[in-house]
Amino acid sequence: MPIETPEGYRALDEASLPAFLATLPEIRDRLGGAATDWRVSEVGDGNLNLVFIVEGKAGDVCCKQALPYVRLVGDSWPLPLERAFFEYRATTIQARHVAGLVPEILHYDPALYLIVMERLSPHIIMRRGMIDAVVYPAFVDHLVEYSAKSLYFTSDLALPAAEKKPLMATFAGNTALCKITEDLIFTDPYRIAPLNRWTSPELDEVAAAIRSDGELKRAVSVLKYKFLCHGEALLHGDLHTGSIMVTQTDTRVIDPEFAFFGPMGFDVGKLIGNLLLSYFSQAGHENAPGERDDYRQWTLETIERFWNGFERRFVELWTQNRTGDAFPPDLFEAGESGEAGLRALGQAQHAFMRGLFEDAVGYAGTSMIRRILGLAHNIDLELIEDQGRRADCERRTLSLAVDLIKQAKQIPSIEAVTAKAETLQATTGTVSTG
Amino acid sequence: MPIETPEGYRALDEASLPAFLATLPEIRDRLGGAATDWRVSEVGDGNLNLVFIVEGKAGDVCCKQALPYVRLVGDSWPLPLERAFFEYRATTIQARHVAGLVPEILHYDPALYLIVMERLSPHIIMRRGMIDAVVYPAFVDHLVEYSAKSLYFTSDLALPAAEKKPLMATFAGNTALCKITEDLIFTDPYRIAPLNRWTSPELDEVAAAIRSDGELKRAVSVLKYKFLCHGEALLHGDLHTGSIMVTQTDTRVIDPEFAFFGPMGFDVGKLIGNLLLSYFSQAGHENAPGERDDYRQWTLETIERFWNGFERRFVELWTQNRTGDAFPPDLFEAGESGEAGLRALGQAQHAFMRGLFEDAVGYAGTSMIRRILGLAHNIDLELIEDQGRRADCERRTLSLAVDLIKQAKQIPSIEAVTAKAETLQATTGTVSTG
Repeated sequence: MPIETPEGYRALDEASLPAFLATLPEIRDRLGGAATDWRVSEVGDGNLNLVFIVEGKAGDVCCKQALPYVRLVGDSWPLPLERAFFEYRATTIQARHVAGLVPEILHYDPALYLIVMERLSPHIIMRRGMIDAVVYPAFVDHLVEYSAKSLYFTSDLALPAAEKKPLMATFAGNTALCKITEDLIFTDPYRIAPLNRWTSPELDEVAAAIRSDGELKRAVSVLKYKFLCHGEALLHGDLHTGSIMVTQTDTRVIDPEFAFFGPMGFDVGKLIGNLLLSYFSQAGHENAPGERDDYRQWTLETIERFWNGFERRFVELWTQNRTGDAFPPDLFEAGESGEAGLRALGQAQHAFMRGLFEDAVGYAGTSMIRRILGLAHNIDLELIEDQGRRADCERRTLSLAVDLIKQAKQIPSIEAVTAKAETLQATTGTVSTG
Repeated sequence: MPIETPEGYRALDEASLPAFLATLPEIRDRLGGAATDWRVSEVGDGNLNLVFIVEGKAGDVCCKQALPYVRLVGDSWPLPLERAFFEYRATTIQARHVAGLVPEILHYDPALYLIVMERLSPHIIMRRGMIDAVVYPAFVDHLVEYSAKSLYFTSDLALPAAEKKPLMATFAGNTALCKITEDLIFTDPYRIAPLNRWTSPELDEVAAAIRSDGELKRAVSVLKYKFLCHGEALLHGDLHTGSIMVTQTDTRVIDPEFAFFGPMGFDVGKLIGNLLLSYFSQAGHENAPGERDDYRQWTLETIERFWNGFERRFVELWTQNRTGDAFPPDLFEAGESGEAGLRALGQAQHAFMRGLFEDAVGYAGTSMIRRILGLAHNIDLELIEDQGRRADCERRTLSLAVDLIKQAKQIPSIEAVTAKAETLQATTGTVSTG
């Protein structure tokens, strides 16, 4: 039975898209020439949507249209078209603060649930580059800026509640996409679930151990609880290396269709977790052991520079833009209390960032486990053809992930995280978890 | 300049109310006889609204209508009429779980922002009874039930996100009322603010000390931050002894116009804080020192029984009604993992309740300070005519409040809270804070 869609909606294809775009003067001019000459190709390699590149005489655009179901699975798994609206809204809000780090939106069609945006070229998905061990020197500074600003400026530190709450209410409508995260990241990998898969039989034992680790499931459930109700800031909601397009000098964060108001550590942690997953996957892509030592080193340095940069930048934004209702400036000024007020601000910031770090470390762990034991895997690991080698990489990843989730409160710094990764990478033989 | 109100709204009075009620068949029948014979009296003694008691031949009702401004201050302080809608919605939602502990709503008029509800008689506001040292034996069990159920059943532990998020989005509209709490509880008492007042000169020094206590302001700001973004459950939002009507055998929680999705510890802590405030106020109402020792004892026992009962009941509801998306039952069952799953649930509940306790202890402290140094004071203390005696009571209250806020994480149990109160009460001479 086909899924019912609202009036005015139809899934576009290579044939029907140009006629629609030709009705939009700005887009028509940008493409140039006759609509019949525009070249259209569907390039969506994600799990959910249609993505078209349209090239004309004068220029090009990218069109992303939501389908009423999960593309990866088919129409047995319906998914609200409104996710296109949330992506559009989130990008628009973020663009106020990080315009050069997200794609420019050229048009949004609410009936077709279609976003027309600039085509990013010659950018590639960062994950693909990392599989080929390509260094991206600009990436870390860009992601520091993107994360710090997109989170800070939508938090209660920057926004008065009267501005933040209506936004939060809007994004509360993105329930279905949040539910995917709730199920696939925080629940299924920790129980027997029909959608789970893993490298079998190699990982059967570790998968079972994870499913019966009470302490782990408790810690994961605390992270899930925060994901459900801790509306700190507008999150990207799916910030991993597959949602980032890069060149050597440019970086764009795409696809915020999972956007909602949630815990800031989720965005930050998901990115760190995906970088760690890439780190452990490198051994599966080496032609000779040690071949990618330098790249591994770069990855760990990138993780350290990302967190440390994020922390520094976020605190800097906080100190400079105290425009929200939280931590009222009046209470943290020199004045009646002398320097004590300013000292108290510094201490408040320190404690706040420590809490964010612990959240991020935990969320990093959950984002690693779901890619190995859950439904949606990553090509970082999937492209490793030798099953035994892949399982070795995955075992190391799981081992660190479990440790991060359980030990988040005890881990003193990001350098302690990368040190753990390095130690695990150096371990030969079977790696245990727990 | 009068405040503009939506079409169809007019503030009712004794003369115009009966004609309106006569248009509602159910209400007309309940009151009985001719509308012209109904006796109407305006009895609103709160800070915000009109409250009418209407008595007819056959029965009576209570009508509560929102004014477009803060009644206590006048039309210089506008306040959205929609708070009546939020009170109506919150009461309706709570009534599903604690029907006998809230007033029955008979009618809601969205144009007049008017709630018609059962008249509670011979109930009185609990605060007034406590000032007269009246023991309410049924109160604690009723409030345990009210708090545990109203919070549990609107949390992510009981509600799937798809049901909770739309509710949360609705109540996100109650921004203006939340803002009152944010300003008057979490901000103004800790800075020089035109609306602040306190017993002066007696408390001048302690008020200044609180305004310059960086550690305290930091802890209060963390509580404010949680109030702003931690949407755990539908709160009453103003749960103190002035929002509770009692007889010896019946208890009703009224006035949830501050309702929104916030941290559960806020409701629980506000109630505890107001009981502690009553405790310290008793010395100001004694004819001879020690006269009210028994009542003080009852108050502390009530506080202990309230928290311990709440904790036990909440955990019981959790164990029996695992219908929400948080802490998925699959992850905490005996099964693959044997008893470990159930043990993990117990540990999760323990840690969760500990966090809730710490929040509640902190919020209790903030709710005490705001009644002594902020705008809105309580008659518990205000009715103490002797300024010196009042200041002594207030100083003890402040001293405990500061301690609770700063030490929340170190306080092992509710008995440790009441022990601190008892020690302070026994202190003679000037009590210091800090």
